[in-house]
Amino acid sequence: MSRVAYVNGRYVPFAEARVHIEDRGYQLGDGVYEVCEIRDGAFVDERRHLDRLGRSLSALRIEMPMPLSSLRYVLRETVRRNRVTDGLLYLQVTRGVARRDHGFPETPVKPALVVTVRALDRKKIAASARAGISVITLPDDRWGRVDIKTIGLLPNVLARQAAKDAGAKDAWFADEEGLITEGASSNAWIVTREGVLLTRPSSNRILTGITLTVIKEVAASLQIKVEERAFTVAEAKAAAEAFLSSATQTVMPVVAIDGIPIGSGEPGPVTLRLREAFHRQAEIGPRIV
Amino acid sequence: MSRVAYVNGRYVPFAEARVHIEDRGYQLGDGVYEVCEIRDGAFVDERRHLDRLGRSLSALRIEMPMPLSSLRYVLRETVRRNRVTDGLLYLQVTRGVARRDHGFPETPVKPALVVTVRALDRKKIAASARAGISVITLPDDRWGRVDIKTIGLLPNVLARQAAKDAGAKDAWFADEEGLITEGASSNAWIVTREGVLLTRPSSNRILTGITLTVIKEVAASLQIKVEERAFTVAEAKAAAEAFLSSATQTVMPVVAIDGIPIGSGEPGPVTLRLREAFHRQAEIGPRIV
Repeated sequence: MSRVAYVNGRYVPFAEARVHIEDRGYQLGDGVYEVCEIRDGAFVDERRHLDRLGRSLSALRIEMPMPLSSLRYVLRETVRRNRVTDGLLYLQVTRGVARRDHGFPETPVKPALVVTVRALDRKKIAASARAGISVITLPDDRWGRVDIKTIGLLPNVLARQAAKDAGAKDAWFADEEGLITEGASSNAWIVTREGVLLTRPSSNRILTGITLTVIKEVAASLQIKVEERAFTVAEAKAAAEAFLSSATQTVMPVVAIDGIPIGSGEPGPVTLRLREAFHRQAEIGPRIV
Repeated sequence: MSRVAYVNGRYVPFAEARVHIEDRGYQLGDGVYEVCEIRDGAFVDERRHLDRLGRSLSALRIEMPMPLSSLRYVLRETVRRNRVTDGLLYLQVTRGVARRDHGFPETPVKPALVVTVRALDRKKIAASARAGISVITLPDDRWGRVDIKTIGLLPNVLARQAAKDAGAKDAWFADEEGLITEGASSNAWIVTREGVLLTRPSSNRILTGITLTVIKEVAASLQIKVEERAFTVAEAKAAAEAFLSSATQTVMPVVAIDGIPIGSGEPGPVTLRLREAFHRQAEIGPRIV
């Protein structure tokens, strides 16, 4: 069966899914996105993803492209048409198509909406999680509002590629004071030698992940102490455990930072408990497919 | 006559000019652009724009989409098909179409190339220049590599819109030390009360404009002293004259900053001499149209 994408009101074969060259997403990076896990034919934390979408859009003064109930229908229909039971839903909203100009269009235009779905190889991710991954650290040179989930991801692209070039899987950004902000498309966590889970508090310097929010709840349910405070690269390297969180990977053990093994150099027990318990805490919707 | 765009190998009616939703420019902001003035049917400073395009692409490790001679042909042909004698050429190169992933595609893909042309109302710009424009200042919260001319322009979009909301035409960014970096899509200049032309030296904090480079030559030819050093917002407000430079506007007088009139509150004499002399110094190519 071939893939289908939703593009501005139509379900089209993936290969023919196109947008106009003056879509402001293409020329100006003027848009936002969300990625939501599909597991056993249902959305994971859909409500929280749509809430965050609303916040991103209102930060940029872009209208919702359609009422929430219609959007939820489109997301379901795109999943159904692709018959994906385990994968990712990707949705992107841009300010729409208008004559290129930096300011918002004088005459309001309809926001553009693109929705795609793809299957995810859960076994491959599970194998990664068993082995753990390595990350490098890089100076955080991104703009001041990374708390908005915009499509302007070039710094993240370059960071991820730098990680690949260094033989690592991902990159963690560190601010001017040497404090880790977050990963190139994930949040960063460590477990101290005292068994405390550390993650950086919400601010303009990080995108507060939905998965991060759920992990805090998981930790509470497992009676693991969580402290929301920034930690340095040096602290991370001296930690008992480290991991990253994202919708795609949920809890992914990090076993080396800049080539330095973390703890035993294997995925840590706290990390694995959180990973194992994650989907018991997440909001799993009704089956779609 | 209807507009024509060049999109990945084909000249197509503008309304039908589309790119795939997985063009990395659309999903990740992974691309660069140039804007080149067309004046009396010829390119202004084409060579320098193409040199800079090459530098932007190599900074991102994106290949040139075709040999330079072919690219020059496509640019000319796009201008000819649109029969624009006074306007702007816009060209955008992205890393190409690939399955969404932050790292560069494992199997290299062909870079995407889009070229458009539009007419410019030179009389309208001249009228703006006679009256002068007002700008506001804003904290520069952009990423650390604005010296690369990328399509990730959302901070610039928001700055321009903030200016419009404040009743001004444009925004100038100021760094943490209160030093002006540049405008939302232009370079910033002042003329001190001692008659010295000031502009910020090249660094990662500004995009070195082609127009800026030409203006330095124009100033030399007019025996106006130029000093390349950063200046503060306060210095700008106390300056004798101020202006911005861009390919679209060449030399545009700035008569107010944050509502404070600059000098006499009218376009200054040095500014107007530079504006008037600009096209005598620029590299004007042979007529295309």
